[in-house]
Amino acid sequence: MGMVGGGRGAFIGGVHRMAANLDGKIELVAGCFSSDPERSRLSGEDLFLSSDRIYGDYEEMAEKEAALPLGERIDFVSIVARNDLHYPVAKKFLQAGIHVICEKPLALSKEEGKELQAVVEKSGLVFALTHNYTGYPMVKEARAMVKAGKLGKILKIVAEYPQGYGISAYEEAEEKSGAKISNWRMDPSISGVSNCIGDIGTHAENLAQYISGLELEEIAADLNTFIPGRKLDDDGSMLCRYEGGARGVLYASQISTGEENNLKIRVYGTKASIEWHQEHPNELAVKFADKPREIWRRGNSYNGPEASKYTRLPFGHPEAFIEAFANVYLAAAEAITDAIEGNYKGPDAYDFPTVQDGVNGMAFIEAAVRSSKNNAAWTKIG
Amino acid sequence: MGMVGGGRGAFIGGVHRMAANLDGKIELVAGCFSSDPERSRLSGEDLFLSSDRIYGDYEEMAEKEAALPLGERIDFVSIVARNDLHYPVAKKFLQAGIHVICEKPLALSKEEGKELQAVVEKSGLVFALTHNYTGYPMVKEARAMVKAGKLGKILKIVAEYPQGYGISAYEEAEEKSGAKISNWRMDPSISGVSNCIGDIGTHAENLAQYISGLELEEIAADLNTFIPGRKLDDDGSMLCRYEGGARGVLYASQISTGEENNLKIRVYGTKASIEWHQEHPNELAVKFADKPREIWRRGNSYNGPEASKYTRLPFGHPEAFIEAFANVYLAAAEAITDAIEGNYKGPDAYDFPTVQDGVNGMAFIEAAVRSSKNNAAWTKIG
Amino acid sequence: MGMVGGGRGAFIGGVHRMAANLDGKIELVAGCFSSDPERSRLSGEDLFLSSDRIYGDYEEMAEKEAALPLGERIDFVSIVARNDLHYPVAKKFLQAGIHVICEKPLALSKEEGKELQAVVEKSGLVFALTHNYTGYPMVKEARAMVKAGKLGKILKIVAEYPQGYGISAYEEAEEKSGAKISNWRMDPSISGVSNCIGDIGTHAENLAQYISGLELEEIAADLNTFIPGRKLDDDGSMLCRYEGGARGVLYASQISTGEENNLKIRVYGTKASIEWHQEHPNELAVKFADKPREIWRRGNSYNGPEASKYTRLPFGHPEAFIEAFANVYLAAAEAITDAIEGNYKGPDAYDFPTVQDGVNGMAFIEAAVRSSKNNAAWTKIG
Amino acid sequence: MGMVGGGRGAFIGGVHRMAANLDGKIELVAGCFSSDPERSRLSGEDLFLSSDRIYGDYEEMAEKEAALPLGERIDFVSIVARNDLHYPVAKKFLQAGIHVICEKPLALSKEEGKELQAVVEKSGLVFALTHNYTGYPMVKEARAMVKAGKLGKILKIVAEYPQGYGISAYEEAEEKSGAKISNWRMDPSISGVSNCIGDIGTHAENLAQYISGLELEEIAADLNTFIPGRKLDDDGSMLCRYEGGARGVLYASQISTGEENNLKIRVYGTKASIEWHQEHPNELAVKFADKPREIWRRGNSYNGPEASKYTRLPFGHPEAFIEAFANVYLAAAEAITDAIEGNYKGPDAYDFPTVQDGVNGMAFIEAAVRSSKNNAAWTKIG
Repeated sequence: MGMVGGGRGAFIGGVHRMAANLDGKIELVAGCFSSDPERSRLSGEDLFLSSDRIYGDYEEMAEKEAALPLGERIDFVSIVARNDLHYPVAKKFLQAGIHVICEKPLALSKEEGKELQAVVEKSGLVFALTHNYTGYPMVKEARAMVKAGKLGKILKIVAEYPQGYGISAYEEAEEKSGAKISNWRMDPSISGVSNCIGDIGTHAENLAQYISGLELEEIAADLNTFIPGRKLDDDGSMLCRYEGGARGVLYASQISTGEENNLKIRVYGTKASIEWHQEHPNELAVKFADKPREIWRRGNSYNGPEASKYTRLPFGHPEAFIEAFANVYLAAAEAITDAIEGNYKGPDAYDFPTVQDGVNGMAFIEAAVRSSKNNAAWTKIG
Repeated sequence: MGMVGGGRGAFIGGVHRMAANLDGKIELVAGCFSSDPERSRLSGEDLFLSSDRIYGDYEEMAEKEAALPLGERIDFVSIVARNDLHYPVAKKFLQAGIHVICEKPLALSKEEGKELQAVVEKSGLVFALTHNYTGYPMVKEARAMVKAGKLGKILKIVAEYPQGYGISAYEEAEEKSGAKISNWRMDPSISGVSNCIGDIGTHAENLAQYISGLELEEIAADLNTFIPGRKLDDDGSMLCRYEGGARGVLYASQISTGEENNLKIRVYGTKASIEWHQEHPNELAVKFADKPREIWRRGNSYNGPEASKYTRLPFGHPEAFIEAFANVYLAAAEAITDAIEGNYKGPDAYDFPTVQDGVNGMAFIEAAVRSSKNNAAWTKIG
Repeated sequence: MGMVGGGRGAFIGGVHRMAANLDGKIELVAGCFSSDPERSRLSGEDLFLSSDRIYGDYEEMAEKEAALPLGERIDFVSIVARNDLHYPVAKKFLQAGIHVICEKPLALSKEEGKELQAVVEKSGLVFALTHNYTGYPMVKEARAMVKAGKLGKILKIVAEYPQGYGISAYEEAEEKSGAKISNWRMDPSISGVSNCIGDIGTHAENLAQYISGLELEEIAADLNTFIPGRKLDDDGSMLCRYEGGARGVLYASQISTGEENNLKIRVYGTKASIEWHQEHPNELAVKFADKPREIWRRGNSYNGPEASKYTRLPFGHPEAFIEAFANVYLAAAEAITDAIEGNYKGPDAYDFPTVQDGVNGMAFIEAAVRSSKNNAAWTKIG
Repeated sequence: MGMVGGGRGAFIGGVHRMAANLDGKIELVAGCFSSDPERSRLSGEDLFLSSDRIYGDYEEMAEKEAALPLGERIDFVSIVARNDLHYPVAKKFLQAGIHVICEKPLALSKEEGKELQAVVEKSGLVFALTHNYTGYPMVKEARAMVKAGKLGKILKIVAEYPQGYGISAYEEAEEKSGAKISNWRMDPSISGVSNCIGDIGTHAENLAQYISGLELEEIAADLNTFIPGRKLDDDGSMLCRYEGGARGVLYASQISTGEENNLKIRVYGTKASIEWHQEHPNELAVKFADKPREIWRRGNSYNGPEASKYTRLPFGHPEAFIEAFANVYLAAAEAITDAIEGNYKGPDAYDFPTVQDGVNGMAFIEAAVRSSKNNAAWTKIG
């Protein structure tokens, strides 16, 4: 594979590489790790790439790689650059005929997202978005339970994603009268119309729909900016209405002091309910009205095929974040292999997040911002 | 003490009696356990009362007890009757000069609540409302932490109260086309304008304000009735705005399958955050941005005086629901003893929920119903 | 009831009174709270006893109470005095014809215990020992599961009881060269041959046998005295062999820093296993080889009759230590009521710990001490 | 690297490869995956090896690889073959001048282990044993705490390792009168003198010594064989005496129904205690006598350098088994890189398990077997 972005010091690029490395079936052979050619070169050398496959310009990379013979050129590109680059980079590689695995968000706006969707569809190529939390086996188990009707009719969904890392900027901002913006995530020209909802709220939104199989139709949102001097939200909560009458709550926060990455979801049905915590991902709690709670644990013989397919270790040998991330790569690689062999069955035949998930996410972000500006008025998504 | 309501088969009456019995300082000596005199008599006999102190009519009870000499007559009455009786019974006993411990809700409407508040204030008597969850020692510890500034400025409050017991009516209602209303809780003439928010949402609302010390000012609510054929809500969620800029989420539900009595609160400040679960009440988690989480446990020497005063057992010997309930009785009994001795210092000098809490609760319920009818519009409380 | 011991400042006496009070069916009417008559009088007055029922001497109390007419005299005595008094006090009251509820340990030695057993048997009276941890509903549920064969054949039992409160004496003792013995628990003439194993190890031993239904036959023990200057053990571990081939580990400790009252038991069978923690007593985990774990929770319709009978509150409204303690009183009171009505069916017909449990406990303690002195040699119990 | 063992269907070989792959710095280039050349070839092809680096004989592999020029030949070999092959394979590669990472147990006996130790020492090469549980960052944090004196003097260590996977053989064995031995782990000629203690008990033993820094000096053990027809233990418990006076309990089991891989350790000191669970590895509980418990979580700024060095992801993004395993590779790779550059500082300068740990493990296994045969007599280790 090739990589765009993810040079020295970038967190998420390293995660993508570990995820890709894990199973020993994907090899990084080319990359444009920075728009600064020197920086790109150094990063590429860190990763043992041969110098002729290290690029300082992603357009050059797309063109040169596409010009290489099949088998030698990269099979796909992994895009881990800043949010504002996802759209142009993805478009370039797709147009060059190269499959894409792309960090979220899909684009800076729903409109841009839809354009990219059109490019993907026209290309017939594989496009996977790394909504990595759907890669956890017990999330897949939860989804399978819902699909099989074990929960009955879904009535309520509570999805939460509190983080606290943003709070360190609070005191500093207070002292400096908020003169400084902490980082690019708070810059609308790079990050889009939302920070917190865009960065992590979409993970909660995607997870809720992935597990429940229900479309989120309408929201009433309240976005907040607690850190003085910031232009974008660092916290937000919303009431939700899903397809078929289910209701719920969804919130995301970066100023919830002491929370780490506490994504959690509860889906309540008429027959049973499920609860899953990202920080303890190997367990799935199932609750009933009239019988003991069940704790489903990864790696057991009673796990369904959806979870088992994406399980690497036996029960009790915990898997975690990287393995879940690697599962997005695994599913996408399955599709890419099929495509190379001429057997690609379209995005819905595999278990990875698609460009449609990305468009939905953009629509969700824009609806949240709109609703919040409009006094939490109920706002349709899409 | 005397009791109104709580005859054979009534759950909450038994809880009140256990709470009152626990410390061996309060003795039940009179009661009107049912509006049916025969039923009242049988219930009173179950409780070893002498027959001349068992009444079939609460007005008669108030008058006869008030006529007895001090020391012989009841020191206070505990009102555990149906919601619609709280107001008239409390009023009657207060007017007869008898202190009152009353089940929540305070009344059927905010207006009624305010009338009762006037009666209480005019009487100069003790009036305690059993928002029992504030009786837990670790809740008191949390409140003391906030008051001492350990959390810094409060930014966010998440209060949840999911129960699932209502779901058993779902299937039944589906089959019967919702012909039957399950119980008096779903009857507006007895229960007031809300069921779920009134019954348990107010506990969450009261707890959030008790711990944070912040007034809930405005809400945007979405109440739902999932069980077919019901007239009142069995679920509801809302966005919250607190005094001083804190935001939050509050929800209550009776159709969250498999949840038992899962009241939980998280209060996030700029310096630290706390998390407390009613189902594991002896622990209080405190989270920080840059040091290890702390688990504060009841009964330890490091507990503050607010919690320690209401602690009966050493650490590791768990206390639970009844002890917390008994703490409301303990605090009210302290005030009543002071009053009998002519030293009553007014409701704010003690640690029990007051008639003001009751009025706040009624205002909250009415605002939630109004907001929900008005498409989740932001609605002021009070 | 009457009480011997438990004067001002005594912890366990207060617990017994709360346990007895809880259900409003038992009233404390007489007591000898201290061997110091003045201290006994003051304690009795704290408890609202009439002065003619407060005694300064337990022998006088037994005689005078026995002389009162039935209905007026105490129905039973609760013995909460120091360990060395359990035997003589219990004997005295039994010989006076009064039923007994007695704190553990039963006596200072197995021999004394057997003598008391003979007295009990000869008297035909009710004798209950407060191994209070067997009073928890989910412990009863666990026992019922084993009895019903749900666990298959029991292979292994792990029972642990770490406390840490003793460690505070460590540093002090180090400084003072261990000159001071902290309290009567460390004095063999009052406490018997063991402190830690006698005080809490027996709870673990009793619980293991109560749940598993298996007799503990043989142990290999290592008792330790970590606090300098102490004469008795403050920690001890042992290998166990149970009737029928089950093996296990049992340990108790008072120097496990930061542990509170962490009694925990795991029973492993060929078909399933159970795990229960005293500090979270409302849950019982059941584990299987090939299906999801189950969490059984108190107060649910799926609880069996053994647990349900001793349940006061609905699910999610946690019960705890006092309620479990009160269940020993409840079961003993049932037997005493039967006895008064001439229908006592013998100790095995009820669900409270018996004098036989007490004798077993004494045999266990003595075997542990003997084994430890004998280099952890396998030592038969009884 | 090269690999011996770990062909198609072998679990642990795959784990080693994922661990080696993770950081993208180690590449598998040669292997002898089976003693059956055809099977070895197929496995090697699965792993994309070139055919001239796939061997059917480990001796041939050692010789041919050693004959290749540096930079081309493997830098080290990873030995994941059956227990009985660890010794001869490791010896062969060491004698060929190739560094070794070896699965545990080190050998089939302490004697063999000591011979291998002599070979390692004579060679001056790097030899790492995959006691992988020491690779977890929070285990390293625990060790650092002990070393820094935060726990005070260590008094007690409780190490447990229950698994339940063996129980599935129980019923089968009962039916077949134990005619069949389930697998090579139960065959003494392959597995050595112990199964359960050798396979997992040694992990607990190694972990206890790694964290506490104390040598295990003496044990009194009871090993059991519950599955009918087996020749080796499937369960075992022991009392422990550590250097300096600390006592403890250690047990391991494969017949603890429903347990997965529940390695857990508690170390109690005079000032504080720690508790760590392998199934929730990102947390470390620290308990004190007189202040709130602390939960130390991986990836935070307050983690010490020992843990931080082996941390790949930010807090809240859980790491697990493979990352811990990879940390053994990482530490060994650091030493191997040093060795290649002529700077190897000896095994104690790095943080990976050494041949000495392996010898200690063999001594432990043999002492456990001896003690058990000798009626749990106290038996010295080593």
